[in-house]
Amino acid sequence: MAYELYYWPTIQGRGEFVRLALEEAGVEYVDVARRRDGVAAMQRLMDGAGAEHPPFAPPFLRDGDVLIAQTANILFYLGHRHGLSPRSETGRLWAHQLQLTIADIVDEAHDTHHPIASSLYYEEQQPEARRRTADFILNRIPKYLGYFERVLERNPRGAGHLVGRRTSYCDLSLFQLVAGLTYAFPRAMAELEPRFPRVAALHDRVALRPRIAAYLNSARRIAFNQQGIFRHYPELDAAS
Amino acid sequence: MAYELYYWPTIQGRGEFVRLALEEAGVEYVDVARRRDGVAAMQRLMDGAGAEHPPFAPPFLRDGDVLIAQTANILFYLGHRHGLSPRSETGRLWAHQLQLTIADIVDEAHDTHHPIASSLYYEEQQPEARRRTADFILNRIPKYLGYFERVLERNPRGAGHLVGRRTSYCDLSLFQLVAGLTYAFPRAMAELEPRFPRVAALHDRVALRPRIAAYLNSARRIAFNQQGIFRHYPELDAAS
Repeated sequence: MAYELYYWPTIQGRGEFVRLALEEAGVEYVDVARRRDGVAAMQRLMDGAGAEHPPFAPPFLRDGDVLIAQTANILFYLGHRHGLSPRSETGRLWAHQLQLTIADIVDEAHDTHHPIASSLYYEEQQPEARRRTADFILNRIPKYLGYFERVLERNPRGAGHLVGRRTSYCDLSLFQLVAGLTYAFPRAMAELEPRFPRVAALHDRVALRPRIAAYLNSARRIAFNQQGIFRHYPELDAAS
Repeated sequence: MAYELYYWPTIQGRGEFVRLALEEAGVEYVDVARRRDGVAAMQRLMDGAGAEHPPFAPPFLRDGDVLIAQTANILFYLGHRHGLSPRSETGRLWAHQLQLTIADIVDEAHDTHHPIASSLYYEEQQPEARRRTADFILNRIPKYLGYFERVLERNPRGAGHLVGRRTSYCDLSLFQLVAGLTYAFPRAMAELEPRFPRVAALHDRVALRPRIAAYLNSARRIAFNQQGIFRHYPELDAAS
């Protein structure tokens, strides 16, 4: 039976990390909310009086009777089933640890344009967004990308992957992070990226993987836009 | 061999979720950074040229050869070993999902006093903190606590626990969340808490568990303070 992915239908957002894993795994899945009445179906599952394990927020994945939420948790589950994480317990926890660290910078990237409240428009928190973004570009992006650069450098199986000798969901997620940061902050990233050559090379390699390349060229890949987590506001990019 | 916990020695912070699990499990552990030269030892592991799996940030746990970071990841590991999570894979993922949701509100609680940058003092971002906290109290605390209230209500094994019929690390973490919010925002929480009676009752029950009660009364429990994640600034509490 095909997996069912539940996520907002018009943005990449956190759901994109799951989409990339499903695409790389080459498994069948339905992006439920992009179908007619799909958002209502998603909402029903969240409010769902019946659900024993209600999700707090999308994305969530249904695999038969199993309903799993939290992006990193979903990837932990999928990675194990489809060879996108190491086989050993230690390896799986290490991959998960990296994914949770990627989740942390994704949260921070969101808060660059929404430092006060998700319930307010960007325009209602623009001065604060400018301040927060300046710090994000100056301190946070280099700290995180520097960390992933070190992880690649120290991988005993080679700097081609974050974990082990094969593509894991962590590699796919690091690709998505770099793609998102580059969309949001092209000016800043043009300056920063040369300092993290292994990260940049990994991004480029993932984009060329046959299934990922096919996905990126398909209508299934939603374009970056101004409703997602990574948004391009030139005034924020220039804040650095 | 005793576990080694690495976390900042003067705050509860994210390390406290791990401390509570270790205490409830009744296992031996060393809170490394609270020993002489312990912070330097922690720093060495983070910078550690030798470490194959370097942590991005504390807390991290050493169990022999295994080094694990990210709070929820550590709890996933410990829960399985010490009966603080369900036995089935589905149950473990559900517990982990709840823990990741608790981690999300903990991040948001931190950002109430640091909405712009961790690298700046609170006093340098006080107007922004006031705005962010007002939204946190009005919208976010009720949304999260309402969610955990529903989870308790729907637990087929009874509302005494978030997961299954026994105390899990999720229960300990929800206790800590409520304790932290109550320390930081006593005025707001006095108004909010009656709306979430199952959450409040769970908090009170966890505090009375013999090992937890002993821990809370010991010198091992660091008091809440103005350097941690949960901070009491009366002007923020009144912002609601």
